Amino acid sequence: MNGDKLRELLESVGRGDVSVDEACERLKTLPFEELDGVKLDHHRALRKGFPEVVYSEGKSEEHLKEIVKTYAARRVNMLLTRAGERVAELAREIEPGVEYNAAARTVRMIYDPPQVCAKRALIVTAGTSDIPVAEEALVTAESMGCPVERLYDVGVAGIHRLLGNREKLDSAGAIVVAAGMEGALASVVGGLTGRPIIAVPTSVGYGASFKGISALLGMLNTCAPGVAVVNIDNGFGAGYFAAVICRELNS
Amino acid sequence: MNGDKLRELLESVGRGDVSVDEACERLKTLPFEELDGVKLDHHRALRKGFPEVVYSEGKSEEHLKEIVKTYAARRVNMLLTRAGERVAELAREIEPGVEYNAAARTVRMIYDPPQVCAKRALIVTAGTSDIPVAEEALVTAESMGCPVERLYDVGVAGIHRLLGNREKLDSAGAIVVAAGMEGALASVVGGLTGRPIIAVPTSVGYGASFKGISALLGMLNTCAPGVAVVNIDNGFGAGYFAAVICRELNS
Amino acid sequence: MNGDKLRELLESVGRGDVSVDEACERLKTLPFEELDGVKLDHHRALRKGFPEVVYSEGKSEEHLKEIVKTYAARRVNMLLTRAGERVAELAREIEPGVEYNAAARTVRMIYDPPQVCAKRALIVTAGTSDIPVAEEALVTAESMGCPVERLYDVGVAGIHRLLGNREKLDSAGAIVVAAGMEGALASVVGGLTGRPIIAVPTSVGYGASFKGISALLGMLNTCAPGVAVVNIDNGFGAGYFAAVICRELNS
Amino acid sequence: MNGDKLRELLESVGRGDVSVDEACERLKTLPFEELDGVKLDHHRALRKGFPEVVYSEGKSEEHLKEIVKTYAARRVNMLLTRAGERVAELAREIEPGVEYNAAARTVRMIYDPPQVCAKRALIVTAGTSDIPVAEEALVTAESMGCPVERLYDVGVAGIHRLLGNREKLDSAGAIVVAAGMEGALASVVGGLTGRPIIAVPTSVGYGASFKGISALLGMLNTCAPGVAVVNIDNGFGAGYFAAVICRELNS
Amino acid sequence: MNGDKLRELLESVGRGDVSVDEACERLKTLPFEELDGVKLDHHRALRKGFPEVVYSEGKSEEHLKEIVKTYAARRVNMLLTRAGERVAELAREIEPGVEYNAAARTVRMIYDPPQVCAKRALIVTAGTSDIPVAEEALVTAESMGCPVERLYDVGVAGIHRLLGNREKLDSAGAIVVAAGMEGALASVVGGLTGRPIIAVPTSVGYGASFKGISALLGMLNTCAPGVAVVNIDNGFGAGYFAAVICRELNS
Amino acid sequence: MNGDKLRELLESVGRGDVSVDEACERLKTLPFEELDGVKLDHHRALRKGFPEVVYSEGKSEEHLKEIVKTYAARRVNMLLTRAGERVAELAREIEPGVEYNAAARTVRMIYDPPQVCAKRALIVTAGTSDIPVAEEALVTAESMGCPVERLYDVGVAGIHRLLGNREKLDSAGAIVVAAGMEGALASVVGGLTGRPIIAVPTSVGYGASFKGISALLGMLNTCAPGVAVVNIDNGFGAGYFAAVICRELNS
Amino acid sequence: MNGDKLRELLESVGRGDVSVDEACERLKTLPFEELDGVKLDHHRALRKGFPEVVYSEGKSEEHLKEIVKTYAARRVNMLLTRAGERVAELAREIEPGVEYNAAARTVRMIYDPPQVCAKRALIVTAGTSDIPVAEEALVTAESMGCPVERLYDVGVAGIHRLLGNREKLDSAGAIVVAAGMEGALASVVGGLTGRPIIAVPTSVGYGASFKGISALLGMLNTCAPGVAVVNIDNGFGAGYFAAVICRELNS
Amino acid sequence: MNGDKLRELLESVGRGDVSVDEACERLKTLPFEELDGVKLDHHRALRKGFPEVVYSEGKSEEHLKEIVKTYAARRVNMLLTRAGERVAELAREIEPGVEYNAAARTVRMIYDPPQVCAKRALIVTAGTSDIPVAEEALVTAESMGCPVERLYDVGVAGIHRLLGNREKLDSAGAIVVAAGMEGALASVVGGLTGRPIIAVPTSVGYGASFKGISALLGMLNTCAPGVAVVNIDNGFGAGYFAAVICRELNS
Repeated sequence: MNGDKLRELLESVGRGDVSVDEACERLKTLPFEELDGVKLDHHRALRKGFPEVVYSEGKSEEHLKEIVKTYAARRVNMLLTRAGERVAELAREIEPGVEYNAAARTVRMIYDPPQVCAKRALIVTAGTSDIPVAEEALVTAESMGCPVERLYDVGVAGIHRLLGNREKLDSAGAIVVAAGMEGALASVVGGLTGRPIIAVPTSVGYGASFKGISALLGMLNTCAPGVAVVNIDNGFGAGYFAAVICRELNS
Repeated sequence: MNGDKLRELLESVGRGDVSVDEACERLKTLPFEELDGVKLDHHRALRKGFPEVVYSEGKSEEHLKEIVKTYAARRVNMLLTRAGERVAELAREIEPGVEYNAAARTVRMIYDPPQVCAKRALIVTAGTSDIPVAEEALVTAESMGCPVERLYDVGVAGIHRLLGNREKLDSAGAIVVAAGMEGALASVVGGLTGRPIIAVPTSVGYGASFKGISALLGMLNTCAPGVAVVNIDNGFGAGYFAAVICRELNS
Repeated sequence: MNGDKLRELLESVGRGDVSVDEACERLKTLPFEELDGVKLDHHRALRKGFPEVVYSEGKSEEHLKEIVKTYAARRVNMLLTRAGERVAELAREIEPGVEYNAAARTVRMIYDPPQVCAKRALIVTAGTSDIPVAEEALVTAESMGCPVERLYDVGVAGIHRLLGNREKLDSAGAIVVAAGMEGALASVVGGLTGRPIIAVPTSVGYGASFKGISALLGMLNTCAPGVAVVNIDNGFGAGYFAAVICRELNS
Repeated sequence: MNGDKLRELLESVGRGDVSVDEACERLKTLPFEELDGVKLDHHRALRKGFPEVVYSEGKSEEHLKEIVKTYAARRVNMLLTRAGERVAELAREIEPGVEYNAAARTVRMIYDPPQVCAKRALIVTAGTSDIPVAEEALVTAESMGCPVERLYDVGVAGIHRLLGNREKLDSAGAIVVAAGMEGALASVVGGLTGRPIIAVPTSVGYGASFKGISALLGMLNTCAPGVAVVNIDNGFGAGYFAAVICRELNS
Repeated sequence: MNGDKLRELLESVGRGDVSVDEACERLKTLPFEELDGVKLDHHRALRKGFPEVVYSEGKSEEHLKEIVKTYAARRVNMLLTRAGERVAELAREIEPGVEYNAAARTVRMIYDPPQVCAKRALIVTAGTSDIPVAEEALVTAESMGCPVERLYDVGVAGIHRLLGNREKLDSAGAIVVAAGMEGALASVVGGLTGRPIIAVPTSVGYGASFKGISALLGMLNTCAPGVAVVNIDNGFGAGYFAAVICRELNS
Repeated sequence: MNGDKLRELLESVGRGDVSVDEACERLKTLPFEELDGVKLDHHRALRKGFPEVVYSEGKSEEHLKEIVKTYAARRVNMLLTRAGERVAELAREIEPGVEYNAAARTVRMIYDPPQVCAKRALIVTAGTSDIPVAEEALVTAESMGCPVERLYDVGVAGIHRLLGNREKLDSAGAIVVAAGMEGALASVVGGLTGRPIIAVPTSVGYGASFKGISALLGMLNTCAPGVAVVNIDNGFGAGYFAAVICRELNS
Repeated sequence: MNGDKLRELLESVGRGDVSVDEACERLKTLPFEELDGVKLDHHRALRKGFPEVVYSEGKSEEHLKEIVKTYAARRVNMLLTRAGERVAELAREIEPGVEYNAAARTVRMIYDPPQVCAKRALIVTAGTSDIPVAEEALVTAESMGCPVERLYDVGVAGIHRLLGNREKLDSAGAIVVAAGMEGALASVVGGLTGRPIIAVPTSVGYGASFKGISALLGMLNTCAPGVAVVNIDNGFGAGYFAAVICRELNS
Repeated sequence: MNGDKLRELLESVGRGDVSVDEACERLKTLPFEELDGVKLDHHRALRKGFPEVVYSEGKSEEHLKEIVKTYAARRVNMLLTRAGERVAELAREIEPGVEYNAAARTVRMIYDPPQVCAKRALIVTAGTSDIPVAEEALVTAESMGCPVERLYDVGVAGIHRLLGNREKLDSAGAIVVAAGMEGALASVVGGLTGRPIIAVPTSVGYGASFKGISALLGMLNTCAPGVAVVNIDNGFGAGYFAAVICRELNS
């Protein structure tokens, strides 16, 4: 509950418009409403300024439909991540206008487009197998009003590919680097530019890559400054963070 | 080597002022000079726009003195991290004006103050044991022209301490959260504000905290969006990233 | 074998009613009977005062039927955990009155309801994905005579949801907190109330959550006192422990 | 801040005794005061009903003295854990009446004895090396008004030692089991009694015990129900939890 | 190649019956023959005194048939482990007399029964889920001439079940203990008897049991002497080791 | 971009044949061309002197076909690894001449045979389950012009098998050792010969072999010098490294 | 308490010589006596047939002296492990006849020599750094009446050293193999002989040997049958197990 | 024992010059002699063609002196690794001509210089903290007759430093890359050149670098082919492997 509402409530108490008992009650129960077993926090979208995000994996079809219906009824922007073809179908039955991105595995409904950020985010991948994670980052950032550009398959094994794109790096508001295996690309990009880099390790690799641990450790231990890391395969988190930075530039 | 210098060099070749042989040579050897076994990259300060940073731990006294002398001679801003009392003494012998921060374990010389950022960074800690890491972040950000504010000892076990400081959170350009043990503070701060949060796990704790692994995993798996993570006890990395974001706001 | 029976046996020996040989034999073989390859301990229910609990996963259908038949014949209260639809069918064929809880994956037969505890257990979850583990805890506690209340989906990312429910927390005899990802909810609840908290990490999450390890470590390293932890996804263990505490309050 | 104070404040606002501005301010800043860099939460003792606990390890002598002085001035019960001989000396200079327990490494000042619990806690250890952790649990529980009894060195390698003490087990309000190596004692105690068991793994052992990980995993995976676990060597946490349970029995 | 054959060969060289060239050649190539891509070591059975053992998992059907044919043709005792119903069928087509044990997942052909050991091995399990591993140990030991006895489902949660069987423990030549979860049974058996115990951790459990790691660590760190450990789920290795010990007693 | 081209470009600038603007552009974009989302680096084959290698796993059929078409059109030697029957079919539709090796799971097209190395690589395995990894190494080395020889199933449990093949070991240019379980074969081979050994741990084993970690650690910690290690199951990497060494011998 | 004593007690009850109350009491308290905080189990020596073993590390000097005094007074054979020079001095003050082995770090007092086993144990090490662990095994086995023989520094890097000692291997009653680094020696010895092998991983090595984990995993995953494993650096456990096997041969 | 000696011995047997008994004996005991507890393998130097290498860490001064004396008496080239100032002193007392390299921590005596390799090894480091490991590699390679060149402090954070040295990379016979932290340098060098690269992870770093594990995983998972890895901080192993490759080029 923000300060304005608190002040308003206290003023009502001061004016005698609201009784002390009622004020006590409202202070505790005001900020959200019940939805069969799931509490929807309408204030969150306002507080964060972005669409509501739903992690679809592991949720039942009934649960997902209920969520989509609730948001659709209120025309709240929404982004479903880790959402396959089947989730897209379910959503389309309720809201035919949803956009489905198969590579990113996202379903999106934007009723009220967010303000466009002044700077763009650059999404970089080491290989083609990192693209699904990169696309999740891309859709997320875009849904938050942040323009995005792709720079895919510029891994360290062919370092000259990256060297030819230094201008793209230097002009981005924030850079997302998605890489698996040893995750060295984050360090190399960090060595080439001074822009803030959000590194997202991917579970691409085999053997001692341990489903992304190798890349995660590599990125956390980078010798280049200006690199921060999100969870393995967390394209959403990386795109979100990039958009938060780029949005700052507007204010 | 930045684009301007390349263009300038090519123009000199075009004018015949510089021979092809010399141009080849300069393209390869220009950007750094040799220092007995250590290559100093003078372009890096320009490229990054910040003081030269030296990780002092594990370096010999001779090596450290040589580095300080080189920078002092060129009046290059410098920041020595993981630097104890003895390193401060060594530096003072060469450059009496250095500032030593015992809590942060930093030694600093600012010859040419950086441009001041429009927004401040907020440095938050869970407990008092996290303060050394937080101070390293603070000194780092400050050295890069970023104003800083402290919010220390507001850990989750006394959650109401944090709740009374929401305005500080919402008005920061970037927030650094330093926490050990389970590192839950990053999630809680992320749940309270939409500002970008750089979480730095500290090695504070015992038993199954495994010298910061518990906090690191907690922060990587945060349920709150807008949180990115740096290495355990990496106050420098967190402060650097916060300053990079705040500096963006100037441009 | 409890002290009363030992005394009784010794008295019989003293009276000459029972021979020394027979006494030796009975001391060794009395407490359980053989069931084709599986020993059923009838004393355990008495000793523990609760229904017999059977972990269904990995047991053959024949084995499960045999167990259910044995208990049904003796009208012993039973609780089958990790039991899917198929196990429920098998049990229903033998004992039509069994209750099946699909969310909790439990099958239950209560012939002789346990004494009702004076205080209730509160079952709290961070998200909706933690509900199956929470429901297992709930059914377990309930089967032991412990009244239960739900407080679901009050995770740390929306901390104000939890803050509105402090009275529920403070009035519970014991609180079960089920959370995955970083498991920070246990710390936050521990910071809000002085009631005993049993934290159960769930395998909810992805990437570096490592199927519950992140939440487990977070809970073990909590900065809040009054929190003890059970195994990952061990809803049964958490519910059992909560009921043991609440039952104490009756005595 | 508890409900009574909130109501009282709102009533003052209703009566016009307190302005809205002042009420807003007091709602945010009332619950704690600043102490050079460390915030002391006086409400916490009230909320938890127990002495203030200070983890001494890693705190500077100045910091510790300041804390002791603050509490002594207010005559607040306090318990310093992980406190060696030197900490005891520092405390004694300020408050000559402190009690120092060398085995437990605790320093204690009880100005106002807590209400005595109706039931006692039983502290059990596998070997003599586990005694320091057990003593920390013992001092903690005792400081919270919980009577305690020792049952030390009854490890699994000599199982009959434990079997002769079943009555002690069955009559305790809660049992703390401290064990290192494989931690099997928690399972065995859990198989013998239905009382709630708080298992605390100790870092006793060598080789593949990995400083307590082996015991921790053993206790988390116990086949006996009614066992919950705290962090490695966390005697304080175990004693605290045991006292919370025993105190419940009073209410 | 054993000493007798070497001496015999050297004597032949000394007598001139075998040329130096041939002796060199025979010294290098004598001990095994080629089988399309797989070298069968006929001397191994002699050297070890036991049936040939074949780990079936991951081998192609063609490969398995070839192996069975080769052994059947030479009437070499064989034991196929990790062998399901399909492997049994394949073997039966070649050698109708094979014995298949579904619980142990073994296929066996004994043409020439081994000498019977003077003492028996006792196979103990904590729960019913550990039985497959125990049966593999049992079939293995039996195939090596070692009489075996079962003591199943005597886990630590019902410790009195085990206490009634101390005579069985004390009269065994060697004891195999198969247990998952925390693996405490090995310690308890080790505390009850002085016979050599081979502990085999099983992958039974969930959550932080990590597919047998918890039991493995528990067994390695046992506080009871006289316990040695084999790999997780390695029933074969445990039964083999028990038989090796019992066979010693014959010599 | 190699030195000759740089010089040539600079000379053109010097002669005025190429403008400065164009030179800047060409310096950045010259070395590769775009292919729908995938950048193909034609210089790499030249730089490395070997076929283009494509890791097939996780790539879509469309993507694989596109790659094969591109290479086939340019008649570039190619090697597809981790390629099953289906990938072979796809490749054959485009280029009927491809060779498919089912054991190695490789698809190969050699348009222009590489120069044959002077020395051969010896590929050694501990068991028959290691053969797929060994065959991948074999096909890889062969595709790079390196003659290969097999020495399979000579594991440590039958050490004499290996001892009869010392001459093969000593005459190889490089030795690849593929072994799972404890990976001891690499140490034993290293103790027998002075040739360079590339050890490749395989994921063969169960229980505490942890899908190759046991073999990996064993090989990294080998007490024999002259052993270097590649990733788990990385037959390609081992064969490649062996061929690089053998090729050196030609120059 | 063994069966004979139980029978005797019951007979006394039957005869009326012992009251029921007294019998109850004696059944519970008979088997051990209290020693200030430490319970000494006199029955254990009888039950196990070996000296009392005391792990000295982490025990206070007072505690150690008390233990030595108690045993010395009763002339109970004792073996102190992990005992440095200082422990030897303490023991000598009480019992001048103790034997101190500096390499093994053991202090020993044998008042009543155990029966000599029919077969000897062979103690094998890979390198010279493994000797302390090997010597602990040696002293332990010897103290239990088991003759021992050394075969040191026969590691895998020089495999021929081991091959010349096959007769020693084949004639031992049991073999202890102590090895660090990759621990391959256990596998190689297991491949050469059919005798039971107790493998003890040592913490010798560096880097990825992780203080013995590499050797531990190597030994658990050995491809040779007839190998069982004890904890890292657990020379005592290995020697004990070897002596248990060799002692069996007497009976 | 090589083939020639075997043949010679067999011929002696054939001629009757050597009895069968003696031949048996010589076949077993010939290849090494005893040295108080340590077996010195004189054949190894011949077999490997390099100096004897002694790992000094953890060896007693007496042991080290004995080894040096033995080698000095026979004038066998020797290299002591992990040898500090004190070891150098001990060696100098026996053999005044030893060379001590403080950075590499090596002591060396070359009586008979090895043949010089045709190609040189290039030793590359990421930072200055990696130099000790690099110097160990350098001294090792040099001691085996391999010319060496340094390229230090060319880490990924300043990638252009490396790019200016591509000719050095391409002209080396083998390249050793020593790097800590994320170890990305190995991948980048592998992307720039086709020469064989031996990557040696160093324990340089902090936090989640886990004393070299991060670099080790990064190097094992490199996306660049032609990279093989040795143990953490194993400069000796890397230098040895590089020299083995370079020596091949001579033959």
